[in-house]
Order: sequence, then structure tokens, then C-alpha cells
Amino acid sequence: MAIIVQKYGGTSVGDPDRIRNVAQRVKAQHSQGHQVVVVVSARSGVTNALIERAKLLNPLPDDREMDMLLAVGEQETIALTAIALHGIGVPAVSRTGAQAGIITDDAHTRARILDVTGGDIRQQLDDGKVVIVAGFQGISRNGQVTTLGRGGSDLSAIALAWALKADTCQIYTDVPGVFTADPRVVPDARQIDVISYDEMLELASSGSKVMQARSVEFAQKYRVLFEVRSSFTDQPGTTVKNEAPNMEQILVRGVAVDNNQAKVTLNDLPDRPGVAATLFQALGEEGVVVDMIIQNIGRGGLANLSFTVAKEDVPRAEGTVREVLAKLGGGQLMPTGDIAKVSAVGVGMRTHAGVAATFFGALAQAGVNILMITTSEIKIAVAIEPAQAAVAARAVHAAFHLGQP
Amino acid sequence: MAIIVQKYGGTSVGDPDRIRNVAQRVKAQHSQGHQVVVVVSARSGVTNALIERAKLLNPLPDDREMDMLLAVGEQETIALTAIALHGIGVPAVSRTGAQAGIITDDAHTRARILDVTGGDIRQQLDDGKVVIVAGFQGISRNGQVTTLGRGGSDLSAIALAWALKADTCQIYTDVPGVFTADPRVVPDARQIDVISYDEMLELASSGSKVMQARSVEFAQKYRVLFEVRSSFTDQPGTTVKNEAPNMEQILVRGVAVDNNQAKVTLNDLPDRPGVAATLFQALGEEGVVVDMIIQNIGRGGLANLSFTVAKEDVPRAEGTVREVLAKLGGGQLMPTGDIAKVSAVGVGMRTHAGVAATFFGALAQAGVNILMITTSEIKIAVAIEPAQAAVAARAVHAAFHLGQP
Repeated sequence: MAIIVQKYGGTSVGDPDRIRNVAQRVKAQHSQGHQVVVVVSARSGVTNALIERAKLLNPLPDDREMDMLLAVGEQETIALTAIALHGIGVPAVSRTGAQAGIITDDAHTRARILDVTGGDIRQQLDDGKVVIVAGFQGISRNGQVTTLGRGGSDLSAIALAWALKADTCQIYTDVPGVFTADPRVVPDARQIDVISYDEMLELASSGSKVMQARSVEFAQKYRVLFEVRSSFTDQPGTTVKNEAPNMEQILVRGVAVDNNQAKVTLNDLPDRPGVAATLFQALGEEGVVVDMIIQNIGRGGLANLSFTVAKEDVPRAEGTVREVLAKLGGGQLMPTGDIAKVSAVGVGMRTHAGVAATFFGALAQAGVNILMITTSEIKIAVAIEPAQAAVAARAVHAAFHLGQP
Repeated sequence: MAIIVQKYGGTSVGDPDRIRNVAQRVKAQHSQGHQVVVVVSARSGVTNALIERAKLLNPLPDDREMDMLLAVGEQETIALTAIALHGIGVPAVSRTGAQAGIITDDAHTRARILDVTGGDIRQQLDDGKVVIVAGFQGISRNGQVTTLGRGGSDLSAIALAWALKADTCQIYTDVPGVFTADPRVVPDARQIDVISYDEMLELASSGSKVMQARSVEFAQKYRVLFEVRSSFTDQPGTTVKNEAPNMEQILVRGVAVDNNQAKVTLNDLPDRPGVAATLFQALGEEGVVVDMIIQNIGRGGLANLSFTVAKEDVPRAEGTVREVLAKLGGGQLMPTGDIAKVSAVGVGMRTHAGVAATFFGALAQAGVNILMITTSEIKIAVAIEPAQAAVAARAVHAAFHLGQP
């Protein structure tokens, strides 16, 4: 008899038929004698509808009241899921985030989990009940409803799995698992059976949208093993766990493409100490997350500097750059252009040489021009022209034989 | 500086424009220096939509889960109302029923209030904030979400007015107040300025649908003065308060018509002690509320008995009657027919004679045949043919000069 935490996202509970499907899946586990905790999100579309309703009344709604408002989405789903389970003869009880003891700080709309008590979940499980918990939400020390921000329901599930010492934590989603590349871009992409937290994190930050990095970070910190799998099939998904020695036999675990990047370029900067520091400090204060950075010395001893940001951050980044240039009294902002980032990730890189050579060789052979390069211990990434992203991904995927079992 | 509790029902917060209207009304009071607590219901239609969604999954949903589900309706409204108030510069904070300390028993979907602590509402008011409280909902001693059943938001408002020692409790609704009769039936019906709890209770139980009896009973028990008024005008409404001596100068306060009644008749019952007791005990155990009862002795010393029930209770009442008749071994169930009940209510009846004579005289003159009669200390009611209800109401209204100031 195992303790299983299952998490179902908004599309998995989007309509009555899908809620019934979730109920049947839960029943299958429960009838085998397992203790099942189910974390659910709001039905897809509900959260956005609530946000729209609020903005009609006030374009800048208060964060605390938004949390009070958005929390109703998950509360509706937990009740409906429990009601569906009762309908097929499974004893079940719903719990809000507060009742499940998801204690957070009071940073409304993006609260951080401080503790998870589990409330009375263990007792309900011992009484033979399935417990349905509202994901995405918690309660602050002073009794206020909070929400965890993007990817919050995954985080709720992983945090509960930790608190309950669950044997398994299954994150159900609309994809079958984590793939060696996006199958829409790379036709022979394969599903990955096992992946390390570090690799999952690098893939998440490289444009693979399966999970938010914060949930993986929490799982890594508290050593919560979890599985990403589809709620529409019975196939096993991808297990995310602590690194194992045999993982290093594989050089590259997967290839990710991020098409949501832009390159901001500053030319003819005065080449004196502190210029880069001033610029990136100002960007940081504006909340602009910078990814890749390159700098070199151009004509006349003046520096050229480029960095990449998410497309939606371009206006803020350009505004900050203009202010900094005005203060510096030199340099000019060039037109910003979209780029694609193609990354190869694998813990095997730590102990194997030659990965970069294979990577760059594959791109050269495919005729892809590299604009920028960045590396970490377990990742190599390049910025290239967006039009070449698919060709580049396929070339790198093939070079590391990722299409072969 | 007064403490004012205002309650707005589902139609008053039904769309963004109406929520803005509520916000403006609250602002008007707040800007005069008053401390304002606002109790709101779910937007009209939301509660029914949630019930439908649940019944799609399970025709007999669990009461506890229905409370978890239905509570989201009010939680949405409190957040939206607070957000609207912020939008027009009024500091405001929302509180769920649980946060407002509405402590109930655990009779889910029809919980009774055990205590009202008010939570931190007093402190929020002292900090200059308007507090928006979710009506209809509370929390049981063991931390479960409960709802109060029909008319629950009115009850929440009156209970909070009591707990906060409010100076005024305003129940905003879609009618301007309590009338001497339904203006759609009696064209010269007038609004009543002041009415006693007892009169309000008799009107409520006689078919005047302004408020549920339980809220009035709570107000009477704890001496909470409240006003029923329209959220669409600035006109004063009807104040409901403890009886005052000068109230007795008015014989009849109002006339009510209840068209939702049916008369069940049993003929040829054995006329021996205990027959009626057996019948009405069985009906009580089935939860059938019986209103008027008459019995007389017919031919051959056998008894005929009639009683009235709400139309929706007819199938259960007839089923019970058939079982009882089978046990008694005698008597027969006659066809059940709809009736209308016309009532005249007024505390002045306690000390004035001749009210009944005027009442029956008015009906006789109008050619209305009386089928049944029932009286209380402050009410006379008759059952008549439904087709004559309007004529009867107008005749009684005129006989007591209720159309004149």
C-alpha cells in the first residue's frame, strides 16, 4: 500500500467528461489499496475569466484581492472532483490549500511556501478516503488566502508529496512526458524515461515548457521523486529524480528550442571598467532577466555588447538601456532583433570532453550561423536566426543520436 | 460616526455595472465618516450554475462538498467588490465567512449560526477600511466550510450587525421595502415605514417573499433593528424593529397572498381518538409542513379532514396519507386541489375587537367563498379558490383603508 500524490492540470479537469476521467483514474489506484491524494488546478479558462472580470472593475487590482478571487477556481474543482468520485462509489473529501496546511509567506499572487503541515490529510487517508486538495493556493501566517503564481499547482503537489512522505508523485499533463526534443520540430524525438533534476531545470530554462523551474527546484531541494505523465493515456511518463551514476553514460539528454528571445545590442560603448556593471545592475533593478551576454572590442577601442531577453521584456530593456547610455554619455542602441536559442542538456557533459565540438560541428554542417554562445556545466546553448531553429535542433538531435533508443 | 452593515443580494451584484453601483453607494457612506461592513451574495445565476455542474457529475451530491462548491460564489463577489472599491479610491478588504468568524454547526447546506466573532473586522474598520464579507457561508467548529441555506446572506448581515453592535443594518434588495400588499395585485398598495418583527414574520410565512423568516427570527431574538430597501434608489425603505406602543393604533399592517398552497382532503375517517395525531405525526416525520387544518363530522359519524401544504409537498403528503389510511383501515383520500391563502397581519389585532368581522364582511361583499379559516394572535387567514385571490386581497386591503396614508 503506497501513498500516491497525483496532480491534474486545468485541461485535465476542463469539463465534466474530463473530471469523470480523472475520477476513474483515481478509483483505479484507490481500489488497489493505495492511499491517494489528488491535487487539482482550476478548470482551464476559469482563471483567465476571473482576471478579466476583475480588470473590468479596476485595471490594477490589488494582489491580496486577486488571490481571494483566483482561489475560487481551484475550490470549485476540488468539490466537483470529490462529487464525481462519490458518484462512482469512492469515498473522498476535498481540502482547500489552507485546510491542507500549505503555509506561505504573504507575497500575494507569487507566495513562497514556508511549510506544509498536511492538515488532517493523513487521518483522512487512514480512514480510507481519497483527499482532493486545491493546488496553486495556500494561507499566510496571518490567515490570508495566497496563491503561488505560475506553475503553482505542480508545486503544491510536490510539496504535499514531501510533507506526506509519498511513495510517488505523478504530475499529469497534456503531454506524455519529457522528450529529447519538441516532436513537432524534431520528428524522431523520443520520450525520456529518467532525467535528473539538474537536466530538467536546464531544459525548463531553455524553453521546454513542461514544468516551471521552481517546482523542480523544490523537488530537488527536498529530494522528491516525481513523474510527468499524460492524463489521456496509461503509458508511463518521465521520472525526474536525483542524479544516478549511470546517467552520465548519456552525454546529452535533450535538445530545447526557445523562440521567445530577442537580442539587444549596444555599439561603441566607452571601454572602461564599470560600464557593464552599471548596465546590468539597472536591468536587474527593472526586473529584466538577462540570459546570454557577449562583449567584444570594436573599432577605435570602443566596446560592442549584446544580450538576450524574453521578447516581452524588450520595451523595458530598451528603456533602461537608453537611460544608462544617457548617463554614460556614449554608446548607441542598435535595432533589437528576434533570435532563437537552441540548447543541448545532459549531466554527462560534466565528465566527457568533446560535446561542444560535436555540437558546433553539427550546426556548421547544417549551415547554421552561430550569433552567441553560452555554456553551463551541463548545457551548451547558442543564439541563432529564428528561421534556422528547426534545422539546428534536428542537426544537434541527430548528432547525439537522441532518436535511437 | 456610525457602524453600518449593508447587505446586497445577487441581483444587486449581478454584473460589473451593478457592482460599481454598490461600490458608489458604499463610498457615499464611507466618505461621510461611517464604518461600513458590506455583506454580499453570489452574483445571480452563479449558485444555480454551480449546482447544475455538480449534478452533471452526481445526481445526489454530498452536502459537505456542495458547501465547498457553493461558497466560491460569494468568495468571488467579495473580491470583485473590494477591487471595485479600490478602483474608486476606497480602502477595502474582503473576508470570507470563516474569516469573519461566522461559526456554525455542521449541518451542511442548512447550517445554523452558533456564534459570530467578527474576526478582525473591528480592527479593519478602525484602520479606516470598508470590510466586504461573504454572506451565506460560515465555518464549523472543526474547520469545515458551511452554508446557511436559503436567505443565508440576510442572516449573515443581521448576525454581523449584532456581533459588531452596528447602528444600522440595511438589507438591500430589488424591491423598495415591505408593502401593505403586493402592488401587482393591489394597485393602491403602499410602502410600510415601520413594521414589528412579529408582523414581518407573519407576512413572511403568509407568502410575502421579501425575507426568509429565520433572519427575522434571529433579528427579533437579538433585538437587531434592520431596514429593507432598494439598491436601485435612494429612498428610505421599511424599518423592522421591536414592537412600539403606537403600532397598535393600526389594526392591520398588510395583506399577503400565498398562491403556492394545495388542500389535501380525507373523507370518511373513523372518528376515534388518535387518528389526527397519527396522521400529523407521520407527515411531520416526512418533513411535510402543514399549514391550515379543519375537521368536522360528516354522515354516519365519520370525520372529514382537510389540511393545506405547499404545492411541492403534495406528492409526499399524499404518499404519507395513503400509508396512514392503510394502517387505519378506513377513510379515503379525495383529489387534492390548489387553493390561495389570503392573510391580514397586524399587532393591533391583539387589543382590538372586530377585525375578523371586517375581514369576513369584506370577502362576503366581494362574493368570495371561504374554504378554510385560521387565526393567530396577530393574523387572520383564509383559504379560497385561487381565481378569487386578487379580488379578495383588494377587498381586504380596502376594508382596512391600507391604501390611505
